[in-house]
Amino acid sequence: MARPKLGHIQFINCLPLYYGMVKNDVLLDVDLVRANPADLARELLDGTLDMAPIPAIEYARHADGLVLLPDIAISSNGEVQSILLISKVPAEKLTGRTVALTNTSRTSQVLARVLIDKRWSATPEYVEMPPDLPAMLRDADAALLIGDEALRAYWDQPEGLYAYDLGTVWTAWTGLPMVYAVWAVRRDYALTQPAAVQAVSEALSGSLAYCRAHLDDISDYAARWEQFPAEKFRSYFDALHFRFQPRYREGLARYLAEAAAIGQLERVPAIEVFGE
Amino acid sequence: MARPKLGHIQFINCLPLYYGMVKNDVLLDVDLVRANPADLARELLDGTLDMAPIPAIEYARHADGLVLLPDIAISSNGEVQSILLISKVPAEKLTGRTVALTNTSRTSQVLARVLIDKRWSATPEYVEMPPDLPAMLRDADAALLIGDEALRAYWDQPEGLYAYDLGTVWTAWTGLPMVYAVWAVRRDYALTQPAAVQAVSEALSGSLAYCRAHLDDISDYAARWEQFPAEKFRSYFDALHFRFQPRYREGLARYLAEAAAIGQLERVPAIEVFGE
Repeated sequence: MARPKLGHIQFINCLPLYYGMVKNDVLLDVDLVRANPADLARELLDGTLDMAPIPAIEYARHADGLVLLPDIAISSNGEVQSILLISKVPAEKLTGRTVALTNTSRTSQVLARVLIDKRWSATPEYVEMPPDLPAMLRDADAALLIGDEALRAYWDQPEGLYAYDLGTVWTAWTGLPMVYAVWAVRRDYALTQPAAVQAVSEALSGSLAYCRAHLDDISDYAARWEQFPAEKFRSYFDALHFRFQPRYREGLARYLAEAAAIGQLERVPAIEVFGE
Repeated sequence: MARPKLGHIQFINCLPLYYGMVKNDVLLDVDLVRANPADLARELLDGTLDMAPIPAIEYARHADGLVLLPDIAISSNGEVQSILLISKVPAEKLTGRTVALTNTSRTSQVLARVLIDKRWSATPEYVEMPPDLPAMLRDADAALLIGDEALRAYWDQPEGLYAYDLGTVWTAWTGLPMVYAVWAVRRDYALTQPAAVQAVSEALSGSLAYCRAHLDDISDYAARWEQFPAEKFRSYFDALHFRFQPRYREGLARYLAEAAAIGQLERVPAIEVFGE
């Protein structure tokens, strides 16, 4: 039997989990492959990986071949800090204007479209662009940013612009958490290697328990190697976390239903969870 | 400052070091890239990596742009178990015959040529082939194997064939240890980031100290995921180790001199070590 091939998102939001995995020696018993979420989804679907965190919307598009790990996701309940809509006008007034969507995101692109359509009742044009705020705002009236670029704008909000934290807006509108990524397992792997899936699931849960108990240390560690101070990482790691309890699954189901309602998802799959 | 990008050889011989690195949490402070030694050498030379274990002969061919870490190498003092010449005739009688060299090795190919030429005074034809013993012995009179294929033949020697452990032969002939791979640093990285190089060098030394103190545990762990029993791993991890003391450096210098003498290396470089 070979070590399970497990994907890992090489972004700052997954650093607390990685820290927990290193401290719990998980890297001895999995073959960890680090990449961005879109590439992880591709490698999972083509069989290069056995399990991986992938964008929530990509999971929904390929749910037939996948099941989810039960106790882990990338999620927020309210503020997320790193998914931001920056606009020259109030979001309600975006009709007839142009919104630039960062090409580095799948789930957040659809989240922005859902909120602009359903929460703000606006109907702008959308264009995809690389994540560069000045360039985006030269060509468009609003810009969706995620990750480091969003955090920079969140912590140092550009003057004279409207900034919307899409986690905050989602939870205020729906009363539900938002799930950005899920840990998916190839269905055939889950069927043939259930013990390996169970072991990885437990190893990830143990790593999360470690990381939750050491968020101050992890924030100091992050500040050593990354460009923001420790207290900002601490605040960020509180906002964007790893919960996937029943309310979070409700949030995921609601998100997928809204995505389908605006034509961004063909059909809403049943959410199937390993071992449940 | 970014985390140092450190290569790691994804073969069983480097598993003890990896185990030590995981247990010492080294993976928090380096960006570890796992690959085979030839690919690591390419990525180090093109600047993708900052430091990496690379084949001893590749180091010598590109020594102008590299310096070595002082306390680590992949080496043996006598028996190595995983570099084997399997022959239908005694090695002294290979003149006029054909030797198949596994295409997965650089340093060991040259080692085999040195020993066949200088130790056994034979002058066979050489061909490169993928590492498949039956196929090699269909087309040739002798075969150089390394790694798993060699270990399998070492532990279950094929009947009616001569088997030579090239580590044993080298040390019997020269009185010196043999160095198969070295940890090389790009010279420009060593000049601009000496503190990072020093930190990685110390982290590797700490990991080696851990691994030397826990070889029984590591052998049990290896047996859990690999195809051989723990006691064979224990014996192998004693044979192929990580020493680079002065006698080992003498062994490396002698190997490079012999490689040059038979025309496999253009010139013998001075061995430059970081911090010395």
